Parts: sequence; C-alpha cells; structure tokens
Amino acid sequence: MPSPPSLPAPLMHELAALLGAGWRTDAAACEALASDDSRRHALPAAVALPQDRAQVQAIVRACRRHRVPIVARGAGTATTGAAVPAAGGVVLSFTRMNRILAIRADDRCAVVEPGVLNAELQQALQPHGLFWPPDPSSFETCSIGGNLATNAGGPRAVKYGATRDNVLGLVAVTGAGALIHVGGAYTKCSSGYDLTRLLIGSEGTLALIVEATLKLAPCPQAQAGLRAFYRDASAAAAAVSRLMAQPVVPAMLEFLDRRSLELLRQNGSEVPDAGAMLLIEADGSHEALPDILAALGAAADGDGLLDMDVATDGTARDRLWAARRALSPALRSIAPGKINEDVVVPVSQIPALVAGVEALAEEFALPIVSFGHAGNGNLHVNILYHPDDADETARAQAALPRIFGLALALGGALSGEHGIGLSKRDFMTCAFDPATLATMRAVKAAFDPDGIFNPGKLLPDSA
Amino acid sequence: MPSPPSLPAPLMHELAALLGAGWRTDAAACEALASDDSRRHALPAAVALPQDRAQVQAIVRACRRHRVPIVARGAGTATTGAAVPAAGGVVLSFTRMNRILAIRADDRCAVVEPGVLNAELQQALQPHGLFWPPDPSSFETCSIGGNLATNAGGPRAVKYGATRDNVLGLVAVTGAGALIHVGGAYTKCSSGYDLTRLLIGSEGTLALIVEATLKLAPCPQAQAGLRAFYRDASAAAAAVSRLMAQPVVPAMLEFLDRRSLELLRQNGSEVPDAGAMLLIEADGSHEALPDILAALGAAADGDGLLDMDVATDGTARDRLWAARRALSPALRSIAPGKINEDVVVPVSQIPALVAGVEALAEEFALPIVSFGHAGNGNLHVNILYHPDDADETARAQAALPRIFGLALALGGALSGEHGIGLSKRDFMTCAFDPATLATMRAVKAAFDPDGIFNPGKLLPDSA
Repeated sequence: MPSPPSLPAPLMHELAALLGAGWRTDAAACEALASDDSRRHALPAAVALPQDRAQVQAIVRACRRHRVPIVARGAGTATTGAAVPAAGGVVLSFTRMNRILAIRADDRCAVVEPGVLNAELQQALQPHGLFWPPDPSSFETCSIGGNLATNAGGPRAVKYGATRDNVLGLVAVTGAGALIHVGGAYTKCSSGYDLTRLLIGSEGTLALIVEATLKLAPCPQAQAGLRAFYRDASAAAAAVSRLMAQPVVPAMLEFLDRRSLELLRQNGSEVPDAGAMLLIEADGSHEALPDILAALGAAADGDGLLDMDVATDGTARDRLWAARRALSPALRSIAPGKINEDVVVPVSQIPALVAGVEALAEEFALPIVSFGHAGNGNLHVNILYHPDDADETARAQAALPRIFGLALALGGALSGEHGIGLSKRDFMTCAFDPATLATMRAVKAAFDPDGIFNPGKLLPDSA
Repeated sequence: MPSPPSLPAPLMHELAALLGAGWRTDAAACEALASDDSRRHALPAAVALPQDRAQVQAIVRACRRHRVPIVARGAGTATTGAAVPAAGGVVLSFTRMNRILAIRADDRCAVVEPGVLNAELQQALQPHGLFWPPDPSSFETCSIGGNLATNAGGPRAVKYGATRDNVLGLVAVTGAGALIHVGGAYTKCSSGYDLTRLLIGSEGTLALIVEATLKLAPCPQAQAGLRAFYRDASAAAAAVSRLMAQPVVPAMLEFLDRRSLELLRQNGSEVPDAGAMLLIEADGSHEALPDILAALGAAADGDGLLDMDVATDGTARDRLWAARRALSPALRSIAPGKINEDVVVPVSQIPALVAGVEALAEEFALPIVSFGHAGNGNLHVNILYHPDDADETARAQAALPRIFGLALALGGALSGEHGIGLSKRDFMTCAFDPATLATMRAVKAAFDPDGIFNPGKLLPDSA
C-alpha cells in the first residue's frame, strides 16, 4: 500500500492550533492507530484527539473543506478493518472523550461519551444494580463508541438484544459538521425519523457519535447455567429451535460444534466426546430461577440429547463459561491463521448452516470451527490455516465467499455483530440488490455529502 | 380547503389501464378515503388499490413522472391526519394487499402484506402459541401497514416493545419506484444501514412498505393483574419508577389519574375515590406467575398506596381491563370535543408531567384527563371541550402547545405511539433543532427525491 498523501498545510495549521497536544502527526502516534483487530494496516496522515463535541465539529468542518477523510476510532477492537484508515487522512480517536456524563437509575439509562470502555460502564453501573446488555467478548477493552458503530452484540443479545436495541438517543456530528440530537431518556417514540438506530451499526460512515443515552437493564438476582451435549449438530440445533419457541427466553444460548469440543478437550477441559454442546444460561429472581431452569431444561431435552448438567453455584458456572471463552484463543493452537466470520441465519437454518460448513471444511481440506450465539442464529465460523502455506491460504480465501454464499442462501446475513468494514464490503453486492445499495448510498450522501467519513468502508464502490 | 387539482389525463389513463377496478375516481370512493381518525378531511383526486408490489412500483413511477402526491393508507385509524390526502393526489390503499404470506413458528416470525389487520394476524398466530406484540387500542380495525407507519405501541410495549422493536425486515418501494429489501428472518444484524427501523414510524413519507417480516413472541402460559390505588399521582408515579427499576418487567403498566377514576365511577365502575390508579399486568409460566406477581406487588407497595387487589382469574382480569378500555369512549361524556395527545417523558418525570397538566387544566379552565402507558412514560393527555363553544375551543387550542412544551421541557417527546402527521408537524421545530430537521429532510430526499410521498406530513416546511 502506498503511503497516504500528507495533509494540506492550512489544514495542518488549523487543527494543530485547535487541538494543541490533541493533534499528532508523528510516526509513533500514526503507527499506533494504523490497525485494528483485523490485523489490516494503513497509516493515517494525522491523529486527532478531541476533548469535546465542539472540537469534533471543528475537525469535521476543517477536513470537509479540504476533502480529507476522517476515520472515527474507539478502542480499535474492530475485526473488519472498519477502524483502519485505508484512504489515509485523519484518525479521530475518542480516547479523551471518555466521561460517563450521567447515570439515571430512575430512568434506567446512562449518558456517556463514546470513549468510555464497555467494562468501565458496567463497573460504574454495578452499585445501581443495573447493566448495559451489549457484552462483546472484547468488553474489557472495547469502547461504547465502537459498540455503537458496529452494533456489537455478545451472548446476552438473545435475551437483551444487541447494541441497537439498547440505545435511546444520540448526539452526533454529521459530515457537514452539524450537531444533531435524536432520541432521549425515554423508551417509546413516534416523533420523526429514527436516526438513532440508523446511526448504530453505520461504522462511522454517516456521523460521529459524541454522546449516547444508553438503555439499562436491572441486574438479575440470580443466574444459573445448563450444559447439554448432543449426538450431532442437527440435534443441538433442533433443541435451539425448541428453546426459542417456548416462553422462557434464555439469558444466553451458545452452540459449540464437534471440533470446538475436541479443541476444549485438547486444552484440558472436561467435556465428553459429543457432536455438539449447548450452553444455556438462565437468569431471574431467586424464587423464579428453579422454574426457569426447569423450563429451559425441558426444552433442551429431546432426540439426540446425550447428557445435561446444571451449574448453579458460582464456581461451576464460571468453569462453564471459562470453557466457552477459552475457545477463541485456543483456535490458534490448530493453526496460526484464522478467518473469523460471524454470519447469521434464521434459527431454523442452523442445522443447514452447520452441515454446509462441515461440507466446505471437507471440500477445502481445512479445519473450520463453528460456535457462537445460537439463540440469535449468529455463529462464529472460523476458517483455520497456516498463513505461510500459500496453498492453504488460497483455500481459506476461496472458502470464505462460499460461507457467505451459504448464509445468504439460507436467508441470513453477512454479519451479526462484527460489521462489514473492509473485510466484507465486497460481499455486500451478494447480500443486497442494486436498488437497496443505491438507497444506502443516498442515505450516506444525506449525512455525509462529501464522503469524508470512513471512505471505502461498509458500502461497496458503485458500479 | 379548496378542492384538489385533478390528475393529468395521461396519468389517469395509464393507471386506469394498469389497475382496472383497482383505480377509482368516483366521488364515493374518494370521499370514503378522505379522512382518518383525526377527523380531518381532504379529498384525493383518485384512489389506487394495488394487488401486488409490481403495481405499487408502477403507480409510484407513474405518479413521480407527473409529480403527483401519493398518500399510503392502511385502515385509516391514524389520529394525526397522517392518512389524510391534504395535498390531493392519489390515496394508495393497501386493502387488497392483505395476505399473511408465511407464519414461520420455528423462526418466531411472520411475513405479511401491509393490509393485514392487526387482529387478523393475532388470530392466525393463536394456533402457533405466538403473538405479535404491538397492541394499539384500535387493534381490531387497524392494519399492520399503519402500525409500521406510525410505530404503533399499546400497553404491552412496556415489556415487549413497540412496532419498531418487533420487525425484522421489510420490502418497500422508494419514491423513485425502486424495490428495496432490508433485514430478514433473523434477530441480529450488523450488515449495512438499518433501513428497517428507519422506515418504521416514517408515516409513508420515505417509502411504501409492501411486505414485512414481523418478530413474534410466544404467548405466555398465564397472566394476572394487580389494581393499585394511590393517594395522589405523585405516589403512583413513584411506584412506576420502583416497578421499572426492579428486574421483573410488568407485561403492562397503566396509569389513570384522579379524573379518569371519577369518570370510571360515573360510568358505573367500582373504583374507590383515590388520587391515581395503576393497572399492573404480569405474565409468565404457571409456576413463575405467583413469584412475578409478588415481585410486582412488592414494588407497587410504598408511600401513598391506599389499596391493592389481585385479579388472577379471567373474569376479574377482564373487568380490570374493561375499565381501562372504557375510559377513552367515556371521555366524550364530559365534553364532545377531545384533543388526545400521547406525549412521552422519562419515567422519573411522570409526576412533573401530571402536576403540570393539572396546573394547565386549572389555568385554561378545562378538564384534562391523563392516563396511559406509564411504564414507557407515555401518557394520553386528553383536553376536553365543547367544539360549539368558541371560547372553550380557543382555550383548548391554546393549552395544546403548552402540553407539548411541558413534555419537551421534561426531556420527553411529542408522541409515543400516534406519530406526528399533520396535527403535530408544526411542533417539530420545538422538538428538534434546525440541524436535526435538516438531516431528516436530507434523508427524506434520499428516499423520495421528488417529495411525492405524503407531502406536508411529519416534517415541517423548511424555513
């Protein structure tokens, strides 16, 4: 990749004067923000670290005058390259806008700046007996702004929804530098267009979010988990359908395929040799929990169930979820290269997805490990390969579009919680027809008339 | 209002040829679709009754060529004038596009055309043990298309969300006549812009929805209700906050003010003389219900509680909700004129809203009755007056902007579930700053470049 063009001198002077120490053009600062968790890399020409919304507006207006790209950045944990400044320009980091502005327990909401880390917020909410539902596996290091940008999810989404379901209002700066205010500390609204949910998941391509009013949920009194082992993925998937069709919604409902279980065993977890496992979490009041567990256990039981056990106390439950969390890092023990996608399908199509992925693993002679948020039909499909083996790498890259094609053919979508970014934008033409993409481009132009926000991300170039 | 201009002859010929008996220009057909429940009235030049999406596209393309307005219409139960063809043109009625295309119990979703009535869908879902949460009081006569257009709610929204929270995907025709497809039969998605939720609540100003994939919920096994009477509105509102801050979410949480209770008594309901009442509904499994009720009862109890009773069996519960439903029609016994608004405030501000409304009732010497969906901070504020009394009418009209001003000053919004339409669009400039309105207008232009969809609704004219 050629080095990005440097910025026009007047813009450099203007932003240096505006931001002082919050304007960095040195190689170290630029290099530090050149990548995200996609391991893609591109150097920005400068890094802007605004302290408030007025500075954000000023940066946008200045960059717009010079048609310089702005890539918004939270904590850089995106897996898709969404935070990588592929077209150069300015990386606008929200690190300094990291204040929790209000916790309004009575109204079950919190008002935050985008740089607050997910875990910081959860910690601040604990004394109020509240939590914010989105729980991506990166929750300790990812920012709320990044959660908003990608519509981040996590295991809890099956009961509590993903980011889009848990935001009440936003303040944001458009590509014209205008400050807009949408939504607020209320849970029901039929007043004008819902720009709040439109901006969530738009990956910094429409507006820069400078404040969010987040919908909070009360912490459940008690939690307990079930481990259910099945003969094969199909039997486990049928159990997922049964679980999702009865009235008691599990707090989490995670699926692990045969290869995931092998991997757990190789890494010392005590799991039996089974075709698939479901981790089923229940939450509720102390009084209600036994009944909730019983209902979930009854739904999980059925053809192909090999074994089921309950973990109600803290240690056993922790072991259960530690096994699940250990999975993603453990993948690297199979092969150092990993293409981790997060396709979504209708819940009824999980058996077909898993079978299709198994067939692709055979066809391309590569390990593909599937696990994830089965209650939402959202599976992490991990293609594992050795990046120094050209042939394996080529096979992995050839398998990827087939996996997307499979998910789309089953009536699903490209991504459930990671977003599109750079890595999936070329597949958007498979997921959407030209008229729908054209409408999305028109919406983009409505917010960002000169296309300065995160160019080359999410939407494919028009034909 | 002057009679609307008639349509250009070539357009008349084209659409008559396209639609046959589905194209009506006779006075009876036009008069039948000239009003909605706002009692506003304006004659369209013609009525189009398409049978499929291809006809909808053809109508839009033809009208666009001639810059003729199109007002989409479901069952005409809007309370805001949103379905009234104030600028003439064509009313496009979805009456004939009224098929339930699929009920996918495994995926907890239904695929419907917009003309299906809410009650028809609920009936079709019953054998599957599923329901669609939006339950506006007009559910027996309103269409799904209208629910989508207004982001309709109802009492159940406190637990299950309003329309926007219960739609997974849409197929729609833009103002350019393009067919777009967004979302699908899955519950989690980070793939492109969320146009689904943007179109919901846009009152036919952005696109015409021709198909919707609706998110369904499993019917609870059991339901029960609590009636709690309080010394005053403030004590009841404090109970609402307590109820919403604990983990067991009520299935409904309705507030009735002192005047509402007087009205119930006058109409023969057995309710004590109290300052306010809460109707608190619980749902869940047979086993869990007693604990759920106990938790809700404990939260409802507190300073100012006068009395509380439980109705678990069918008859007593029906009586409870019959009293609530009887309220809206009973208002006409106080005065024949009614301005029924549905403002929203943060839950913590309900006491201030109720006190403020009581002060306005005194200031304007008019009865104002407040009741509604307290768990969402969404109250129906009814200003009652005699339309043949010019002075009362003027006072009622003068009180209205003060009520909106009060809700906005408390951090709320103009409408929780009715929408903006004609009746509230002039207040949009109080609710949103110019930059936000300008962005909404740009979004409108992105979908409907020539402004043919429902002109003069939702957004105020630009300055």
